[in-house]
Amino acid sequence: MSAQPTDSTPLRFSRWEQRTEVPLFVASLVFLLGYAGRVLAPHDAEPWRDLALILVCCTWLFFAVDFVVRIRLSGQGLRFLHTHWLDTVVLVLPLLRPLRLIRLYTALQRRRAQPRLSLYARVIAYAGMTALLLGFSAALAVYHQEHDAPGATIRTFGDAVWWACETLTTVGYGDAVPVTAGGRTVAAGLMVCGLALLGAVTGSFSSWLVQVFTREDEKGPTQSG
Amino acid sequence: MSAQPTDSTPLRFSRWEQRTEVPLFVASLVFLLGYAGRVLAPHDAEPWRDLALILVCCTWLFFAVDFVVRIRLSGQGLRFLHTHWLDTVVLVLPLLRPLRLIRLYTALQRRRAQPRLSLYARVIAYAGMTALLLGFSAALAVYHQEHDAPGATIRTFGDAVWWACETLTTVGYGDAVPVTAGGRTVAAGLMVCGLALLGAVTGSFSSWLVQVFTREDEKGPTQSG
Amino acid sequence: MSAQPTDSTPLRFSRWEQRTEVPLFVASLVFLLGYAGRVLAPHDAEPWRDLALILVCCTWLFFAVDFVVRIRLSGQGLRFLHTHWLDTVVLVLPLLRPLRLIRLYTALQRRRAQPRLSLYARVIAYAGMTALLLGFSAALAVYHQEHDAPGATIRTFGDAVWWACETLTTVGYGDAVPVTAGGRTVAAGLMVCGLALLGAVTGSFSSWLVQVFTREDEKGPTQSG
Amino acid sequence: MSAQPTDSTPLRFSRWEQRTEVPLFVASLVFLLGYAGRVLAPHDAEPWRDLALILVCCTWLFFAVDFVVRIRLSGQGLRFLHTHWLDTVVLVLPLLRPLRLIRLYTALQRRRAQPRLSLYARVIAYAGMTALLLGFSAALAVYHQEHDAPGATIRTFGDAVWWACETLTTVGYGDAVPVTAGGRTVAAGLMVCGLALLGAVTGSFSSWLVQVFTREDEKGPTQSG
Repeated sequence: MSAQPTDSTPLRFSRWEQRTEVPLFVASLVFLLGYAGRVLAPHDAEPWRDLALILVCCTWLFFAVDFVVRIRLSGQGLRFLHTHWLDTVVLVLPLLRPLRLIRLYTALQRRRAQPRLSLYARVIAYAGMTALLLGFSAALAVYHQEHDAPGATIRTFGDAVWWACETLTTVGYGDAVPVTAGGRTVAAGLMVCGLALLGAVTGSFSSWLVQVFTREDEKGPTQSG
Repeated sequence: MSAQPTDSTPLRFSRWEQRTEVPLFVASLVFLLGYAGRVLAPHDAEPWRDLALILVCCTWLFFAVDFVVRIRLSGQGLRFLHTHWLDTVVLVLPLLRPLRLIRLYTALQRRRAQPRLSLYARVIAYAGMTALLLGFSAALAVYHQEHDAPGATIRTFGDAVWWACETLTTVGYGDAVPVTAGGRTVAAGLMVCGLALLGAVTGSFSSWLVQVFTREDEKGPTQSG
Repeated sequence: MSAQPTDSTPLRFSRWEQRTEVPLFVASLVFLLGYAGRVLAPHDAEPWRDLALILVCCTWLFFAVDFVVRIRLSGQGLRFLHTHWLDTVVLVLPLLRPLRLIRLYTALQRRRAQPRLSLYARVIAYAGMTALLLGFSAALAVYHQEHDAPGATIRTFGDAVWWACETLTTVGYGDAVPVTAGGRTVAAGLMVCGLALLGAVTGSFSSWLVQVFTREDEKGPTQSG
Repeated sequence: MSAQPTDSTPLRFSRWEQRTEVPLFVASLVFLLGYAGRVLAPHDAEPWRDLALILVCCTWLFFAVDFVVRIRLSGQGLRFLHTHWLDTVVLVLPLLRPLRLIRLYTALQRRRAQPRLSLYARVIAYAGMTALLLGFSAALAVYHQEHDAPGATIRTFGDAVWWACETLTTVGYGDAVPVTAGGRTVAAGLMVCGLALLGAVTGSFSSWLVQVFTREDEKGPTQSG
């Protein structure tokens, strides 16, 4: 949202953004896959782990180059860091990169003449997909931090996914809990973001349900269902 | 909702839907009862367990036949799987079948000239009933998966119902937690669906309360209560 | 709400309701105090425990008499159980009695010419007070069920109040959890009602905050604060 | 909000409020820092602990003097305690003092001609910042109560912050739980306030997201993003 080109944006900037859209998205996926491979591969699978590390570094370099080019083309200098703060955050924490998927999806939607989903359905899809990505990234990061910590309860990636589920939904059984400072920081971030996103999903679902029932009223009671 | 007949639906399709409504609902209940019997009957009550298994298989066969007939009558071929995705899900996971109860209820409501419940009350009733059914089905499925797993904390059906309660309301004490992969998958599904449904209940209750207080204001402060 | 006299209600019925309002409220408080005394008094304080039991029985008898008189005066016979279902529930579970406090409060509010609280503030006050009463009653009932059960974690009344707090807010640490069937039934009731009530509090607070900020906008940015 | 000067407020009162705004805010920060120092300093760092205690006492004295002067200037006598109840609460529980930060922020915002944040963004910022302050103060207070209690699970300040996170978001794993009466009282306060504040954040975020998607619809599907 924060990267919407305004009227004063130079033409070359928006052309760069259009051209890098698909490559950046592919790079995001490669980054996520690389990180997942690095974290999940067994310790003795050296070549795979090295390959994953190389993938992660290369794609991150690509992100950095794109970021520098966009600062240049925008003609804003360091003020770019402020006006495009979301891009800056995403550069530092590239696990959040795949959130670009949503921008791509929105862009694709817009190219078709008519959006197919209703307003609430789109909010649910957007917030739900973001929550899913956040949860997966957080599960990877927490597994990375926790799986060989002393006294850890998150020992397998399955545990980490299960932990992400119960954290995002605020159930919090307590059978799988991060114990390291790094894991707890990731967890706190997931809680705050997840709460807001799932609140949006819940609120929109509720509004959508009320809308559906209102429409049924208007159709009248005699029509067959 | 996704199974609403559109204008282009062949007449024979909607006639089939009308005629199978009540039988399918009865079959759903029989399926749920059969599954409950299979899961809850003691291991040495062989004839009852066999009867329950037969009931489950027969009703599932009935669902499959109905599904095939509807694909044929709809004249859509495999595209039916997409337009009626909820029906496809319900065929694969027949424990969600009794959700048809709600369609039946809606249909019955519509046949009477005037709905008796207000908009919010209907949303609360619909979402609450669905949550209840989901919770009961999930308790059955989790009990099935967990009750003889090593290290399980859900050992009786009472534990499973208690677990479903604290999961649906997102309290999550952690005294009863699924430990198997199957149980955790069911739990994750229950969390996601339950959260949305209870959000709808909560939101509608809140709107209803505001509505009631607004009406009281309009009635004026002098009227006796 | 369900006990509002309609136009067809006989005059004697509404006169009875007006006259019994204050005595019934006092009796509700006496009942709650009596139940609290019975539950919380030490086992060797026999005269106090007996007095509390007598208070509970007498007030319940008073409620029953009032209920029978109202069935008679309403002229509805057994249909009264349906139209006044909340009163019926409250007769069987007299711990919910003090909810009448809210009716009394509403009645008092209405007698003054102008309500002082805004719409949202009233919803918050109503739902919050009901949640408080529910929590206190549930803490009493759970303490009653649990305090001498084997393996219980709720051993003192302080534990029970702490448990009610973390349950109503859906935090659910799991350090104090009911283990008996009776305690879990009370807990499930508290969860369902508490969730709806606190959802109303949260939703109204959110709406109120948005309203306050909207008003600040309208007052204009130059006015000093 | 409760301290807004009304038309009948004497001029000297509002002048006093304007003049003490910045000093009071600085004093609030000093108080928080002093309390944090007192609580977090190791037991053998006597001079620092004494300095922190002196800071806390002096700032509290400053608050008390300000409160007395404002009672005098308001010309309301003891009725001031009722009309400015939030100020009274804040005098008794000075850890909530930094909530004045929000008043200062609002005042600063108003002096600039145009507010930069949208309505929902301001509600989110306000409620989120208040929740952060509440969480930090509660973490300090709970650490103070718990860290040397027998059987405590909150032993370091990091544990206390982690506990505040999982309590505010209602996740409640149960790995860090207050066990003393004082700690539980603070926790109950945090739960109630935090729930309302985070409900406001969630609700506003949801409304904001719906607004953003609505605007996108209005901009039309052909515009490039």
